[in-house]
Amino acid sequence: MRTVDVALGNRAYPIRIGEGLLADASLITPHLRTRRVAIVSNEIVAPLHLSALRAGLLAAGVDITEIILPDGESYKDWGTLNLIYDGLLAARCERSTTLIALGGGVIGDMVGFAAATYQRGVPFIQIPTTLLSQVDSSVGGKTAINHPLGKNMIGAFYQPKLVLADINSLQTLPLRELQAGLAEVIKYGFIRDLPFLDWLEDNLDALLARDPEALGYAVERSCLNKAEVVAADETEQGERALLNLGHTFGHAIETGLGFGVWLHGEAVAAGMVMAAELSARLGMIHSADVARVRRITERAGLPVQGPKLGAERYIELMRHDKKVEEGRLRLILLQAVGQGVIRDSAPLVDIAAAIDSCCA
Amino acid sequence: MRTVDVALGNRAYPIRIGEGLLADASLITPHLRTRRVAIVSNEIVAPLHLSALRAGLLAAGVDITEIILPDGESYKDWGTLNLIYDGLLAARCERSTTLIALGGGVIGDMVGFAAATYQRGVPFIQIPTTLLSQVDSSVGGKTAINHPLGKNMIGAFYQPKLVLADINSLQTLPLRELQAGLAEVIKYGFIRDLPFLDWLEDNLDALLARDPEALGYAVERSCLNKAEVVAADETEQGERALLNLGHTFGHAIETGLGFGVWLHGEAVAAGMVMAAELSARLGMIHSADVARVRRITERAGLPVQGPKLGAERYIELMRHDKKVEEGRLRLILLQAVGQGVIRDSAPLVDIAAAIDSCCA
Ligand SMILES: NC(=O)c1ccc[n+]([C@@H]2O[C@H](COP(=O)([O-])OP(=O)(O)OC[C@H]3O[C@@H](n4cnc5c(N)ncnc54)[C@H](O)[C@@H]3O)[C@@H](O)[C@H]2O)c1
Ligand SMILES: NC(=O)c1ccc[n+]([C@@H]2O[C@H](COP(=O)([O-])OP(=O)(O)OC[C@H]3O[C@@H](n4cnc5c(N)ncnc54)[C@H](O)[C@@H]3O)[C@@H](O)[C@H]2O)c1
Ligand SMILES: [Zn+2]
Ligand SMILES: [Zn+2]
Repeated sequence: MRTVDVALGNRAYPIRIGEGLLADASLITPHLRTRRVAIVSNEIVAPLHLSALRAGLLAAGVDITEIILPDGESYKDWGTLNLIYDGLLAARCERSTTLIALGGGVIGDMVGFAAATYQRGVPFIQIPTTLLSQVDSSVGGKTAINHPLGKNMIGAFYQPKLVLADINSLQTLPLRELQAGLAEVIKYGFIRDLPFLDWLEDNLDALLARDPEALGYAVERSCLNKAEVVAADETEQGERALLNLGHTFGHAIETGLGFGVWLHGEAVAAGMVMAAELSARLGMIHSADVARVRRITERAGLPVQGPKLGAERYIELMRHDKKVEEGRLRLILLQAVGQGVIRDSAPLVDIAAAIDSCCA
Repeated sequence: MRTVDVALGNRAYPIRIGEGLLADASLITPHLRTRRVAIVSNEIVAPLHLSALRAGLLAAGVDITEIILPDGESYKDWGTLNLIYDGLLAARCERSTTLIALGGGVIGDMVGFAAATYQRGVPFIQIPTTLLSQVDSSVGGKTAINHPLGKNMIGAFYQPKLVLADINSLQTLPLRELQAGLAEVIKYGFIRDLPFLDWLEDNLDALLARDPEALGYAVERSCLNKAEVVAADETEQGERALLNLGHTFGHAIETGLGFGVWLHGEAVAAGMVMAAELSARLGMIHSADVARVRRITERAGLPVQGPKLGAERYIELMRHDKKVEEGRLRLILLQAVGQGVIRDSAPLVDIAAAIDSCCA
């Protein structure tokens, strides 16, 4: 088992990474305030992975309430959040009851927000079951639901007590979801970890073949990167914004096409290529570096071009992104491969040209 | 102007108390991140007090979005909260926009929760306009909305950047609301401030006559008490629970009658008498002390008896209170006048007897 510690003072917590962790209640019980949990999962993940988790906890004498939600990003909304509150209240869950999120980023974000707000905050544990949620969304304490006028518009910063990333759960993940998760993995290489990028280029095939050893390392290294950034900047005042490489472009794609047409990771992948292209246009990196971004993205089975929405529409959508401050477009660009930077000075013409050159 | 500092490290903030503060934008602008605010108020308070606030801020060059909600506890729900999100999103309010709550505790709690959750947290300022909100709800960072299955069930701990208590705003407050606020003022005397209780007994008539000097002192002293407790125990793990004197009984009254029949402060008043009565039954205080609780409560125009719901029903409702841990009834009792204590060992028969002796 691998462990990454998220150093956040009195809100510090460990990420445990390994095979079969779900079934090992002894990893969970030390983090419970009382022997009472509410497991929240969805209709896809529960039939696959809930029984192992349940069996372990029951054997450890833990009282379990189960709340099973419909599956999908379109349910990451107030209505579904309310199903969690209803379930917690119906079962008389108390302030000391620990919420356990079992599922991908949608479940993690929503259960995290429920935990942050149920009775003004109850303990919670993340058990991410997608690659994206293991390497990204379960770490760092960002929780949210969507609002009809914007994705992740309602949320809180709220840290879990424990993250349990069971590598085995990735075996049941659809390939397209695995690939989408790789976009975030690759991202860490480009913004801050060149050696990891080299490793990824060497081990991409093993990852796509779901080799447990390779997956375990990729999850660990990704979590290390994310944990370092988060520990330095918990509430995204500065450095944490680097994690948004490709995301402002990507959100424009997700919103422009309507959520769910492209997966988040797919949109981020095309967005990273756009960010690299823009960086090259601004003379920050070479065209060979852009080619490197394109190559690994393509090898991972991810899109390297965005949909043809028109640069104007992209920019309009990017302006609505919540990362916009005082009307300026703040973007994450590359100063070198392995070194992201925050810039709000990119001229609109260059942004537009970069977008146009990356759309088909 | 009086100032009370709430010492919460990097989340510390001042409470300013005085006459006409609403109109003085120079008290507000130092606490804004940008010259952009969204003022949230309701249909009762806005016509009375919004124009003074608006004029000051406009003159100081602050850009204002106004969101006016329907009035009343029954609107402290998700639907109304969504009106705030809608207004913020429609006006494209950013993460740096400061939310200003102008109103009583309902507005303060709801706007505070909106601020805690809009884009995962934006700065906010409390301008409480009821006595209850000036002495209690605006201080300490508890924010919440109600859920059909329970009051304040959904919320967060989230601190304002500033609290501005304009004593003049209390001149327009209905007498019954003023009296309800006095219940919380009196509470501080009984749980931890005997000299203040003496002062209150001497100055109750001035307070009821809305003498600005007396009101200013009562608000200051109440805030000092609350700030001390909150600073010692921000998230209510221990001492902060003392502030709930009368509240578990009171919530049973509010829920049992249906919310809105009794005002919160009225229910707390009757609840304090019950808590005192129970303390006497357990031999913790004398019957003369109970009489003292009854006397000042009555002089303040507040109920000293609860509605006849039957002790069993009270206890059932009290069990649902969110302050219940592991099924035990945790109550705030008096060890002496001026000294509250947390107890979870009171026998049910005594609780029932105390309730019965305080109902009519
Ligand atoms: N909080 C953050 O910091 C953060 C970061 C990135 C993304 N996110 C959020 O995460 C969400 C995306 O997360 P996601 O990509 O995990 O999507 P997801 O949760 O929708 O999961 C993708 C699909 O895979 C299914 N699934 C999950 N685990 C499975 C398994 N082991 N086997 C088979 N199927 C499985 C899910 O039910 C779903 O149908 C978005 O809502 C995004 O906003 C949050
Ligand atoms: N957050 C906390 O720590 C905390 C503590 C105690 C109570 N509360 C909450 O506070 C709420 C009760 O607050 P409240 O008693 O202020 O009720 P309220 O906000 O409903 O105000 C009472 C009434 O007075 C009106 N009003 C407000 N200011 C006025 C003014 N200056 N002139 C004329 N009318 C005015 C309001 O519109 C309302 O009709 C409850 O929801 C309770 O849960 C929160
Ligand atoms: Zn992402
Ligand atoms: Zn109260």
